Amino acid sequence: MLTAAARPIASAHPITTDDIGIATLHHTPSRLTIRWSDGRESPYPAIWLADNRPDRRDRPDGQRLFDAIDLPEGIVLRAAALAADGSVETHLAGFDTPARFTAAWLRAHALDPASRAGRRRKPVLWDAGLAAAPPSGDYAAVLADDGARAAWLRQVHDHGFALLRGVPTEPGMVCRVVEIFGHVRETNYGRLFDVVAVEKAQNLAFTALSLGNHTDNPYRDPVPQMQLLHCLEAASEGGESVVVDGFAAADRLRREAPDAFDLLTRRAVPFRYVEAGKVDLRAKAPLIELDADGDVKAVRYNNRSIAPFDLDPDEVEAFYDAYRRFGRLLHDPALTVGFRLAPGDLFIVENRRVLHGRRGFSAGRRWLQGCYTDTDGLTSTLFSLEASR
Amino acid sequence: MLTAAARPIASAHPITTDDIGIATLHHTPSRLTIRWSDGRESPYPAIWLADNRPDRRDRPDGQRLFDAIDLPEGIVLRAAALAADGSVETHLAGFDTPARFTAAWLRAHALDPASRAGRRRKPVLWDAGLAAAPPSGDYAAVLADDGARAAWLRQVHDHGFALLRGVPTEPGMVCRVVEIFGHVRETNYGRLFDVVAVEKAQNLAFTALSLGNHTDNPYRDPVPQMQLLHCLEAASEGGESVVVDGFAAADRLRREAPDAFDLLTRRAVPFRYVEAGKVDLRAKAPLIELDADGDVKAVRYNNRSIAPFDLDPDEVEAFYDAYRRFGRLLHDPALTVGFRLAPGDLFIVENRRVLHGRRGFSAGRRWLQGCYTDTDGLTSTLFSLEASR
Repeated sequence: MLTAAARPIASAHPITTDDIGIATLHHTPSRLTIRWSDGRESPYPAIWLADNRPDRRDRPDGQRLFDAIDLPEGIVLRAAALAADGSVETHLAGFDTPARFTAAWLRAHALDPASRAGRRRKPVLWDAGLAAAPPSGDYAAVLADDGARAAWLRQVHDHGFALLRGVPTEPGMVCRVVEIFGHVRETNYGRLFDVVAVEKAQNLAFTALSLGNHTDNPYRDPVPQMQLLHCLEAASEGGESVVVDGFAAADRLRREAPDAFDLLTRRAVPFRYVEAGKVDLRAKAPLIELDADGDVKAVRYNNRSIAPFDLDPDEVEAFYDAYRRFGRLLHDPALTVGFRLAPGDLFIVENRRVLHGRRGFSAGRRWLQGCYTDTDGLTSTLFSLEASR
Repeated sequence: MLTAAARPIASAHPITTDDIGIATLHHTPSRLTIRWSDGRESPYPAIWLADNRPDRRDRPDGQRLFDAIDLPEGIVLRAAALAADGSVETHLAGFDTPARFTAAWLRAHALDPASRAGRRRKPVLWDAGLAAAPPSGDYAAVLADDGARAAWLRQVHDHGFALLRGVPTEPGMVCRVVEIFGHVRETNYGRLFDVVAVEKAQNLAFTALSLGNHTDNPYRDPVPQMQLLHCLEAASEGGESVVVDGFAAADRLRREAPDAFDLLTRRAVPFRYVEAGKVDLRAKAPLIELDADGDVKAVRYNNRSIAPFDLDPDEVEAFYDAYRRFGRLLHDPALTVGFRLAPGDLFIVENRRVLHGRRGFSAGRRWLQGCYTDTDGLTSTLFSLEASR
């Protein structure tokens, strides 16, 4: 909002920020407004500028000694002007010295709707068509080369799923793959677990039965955010793997049945896994979880560990309708990708997004090793690699 | 809702479930309703009963072979009656056999408002008064005795904070304490980290400066859910620890300034931690996070790693007001508990709930070792121990 006190300043020399420069700026006591050379107009409230003064972020890592609770009351923007070096110099009442902000920093942190939208995560949604060319990498290349590593991690990040070929068929390699980008999340199943058919299995995963598409461990908070499965031996018949993009299914549900989508985001469902006397894992969360922007943040789906719904009885039927509609989408052949792991193949899924399943197997030994990790290590490594290039 | 088809059945022999029995039951085609001996009335929708038939949960761990998406359409409750053994026998259209539910199971999973409220987590909120008798345990007892272990874990679970005394002052013991109940969460800081003042620290934690009350690693998703700090050497002057119950502060904010509370729950704030070329951790989440029931699930507060707010400019001033109001509560002496760790003392905090800080220190060496873990291991161990007693 510009008041009568606003003083537009024409810029004789637009500052380049990735080819976009400051065209003009003006200010009122309560905010600075920049018009950029591409026509975008970005407002910067005075208190926000005071909180983000570069001299308040004086550590190499940007960590602050200072807290916004220590800001003076009644912050006023007294002056703002383009400096000779292209930065914007601001004078804020309550501070002894002016503060300079670079055009690049101001553009990167701008609060206009287009700038804010540009910073939201945009997952690449996919369906059965992904089977033609599934995201994949080569283990030796990913290990040896920063570019190949960044490219593979970028695929995992964007698709929530990728294959990795040529992983040596030695037990324990699945943890070595995690160590390329992060840290293994150890659980009651160990640092890694063998997925083989055993007698009297405590968990259905350790049988030869088919498993419907599911996310792992929804009875755990936090759920393991990524799962890796590495094939050491393949069944001679059956045992194919299946993946489905839960975000794509949620997106379809949102468009086709907004009320059902809404109900699944607003109601939490309990999950539980028990091994008597040893393990009693419980968590309660929505099947579709939204972030503060209304974007889908996580899906959970696991018919084996879902516990009796804890809902208002009058909502139970509508909830079953919504659950079943979502469940059918998650098994829709138009959305699922099936593939057969050969020894040395590994796949990784973002476990809050992509469901996996398997067909039953009858002949031959099938031996996978799996482990869990979190996305923090993956994104940290990815962003660091990308920033270094 | 009872229709004209409802058939009340008087029970001559109330079934005991922790001294509470079934007084009467009746049913309509769409639901069973039980009136309990304490007057509580619990409805059970027909589809919910069909989904929870015991024969559909046939594994020792309660894992199902079956998914609700496979339920027949148009489920109708044809009959429901008290069986001689005290269970409730139901006949559901679409199933060949009747299904029996025990009174204890029905009571434990009932969907009336009182039963549902009874299953919500009720954290024990605390303030500065906790300093008189902080929750604590003795390492040797917790290690040796199931009862002492369950009692200590119960305190951690209820208060989000506890001390443990008498932990041997050997490096690495902090991880051994985690292994009593769970698994270490390894991060870019390692399995454990030394908190000592070092030259040119990358992170303010590794200086002698005071640290405001904070939660750890809000730039990480998932945040480490629990942090342990073990004192190996104490500063001869300063370095006291401080903790504050973020849930209690959020509760006060909710009562005193509901609009501010609401804004902090609805808007996400970015956090970031960078070590150039190596680490780039980013996460965005509300400072106060609610679960689907509207209960506070997590708080985040860290002035060092909070990044520039990414908000609608018109909300910025209101958001700063709310942030600063919450921040002042989190440092209010009426809410904070200060204590001095002696060598061999350890404290644990639930990092999504309890903030910790420290006073600056000037004289003597201060050496803590810290590590992270998640609540899943703690609650699983606690619930298993409590079920075995």
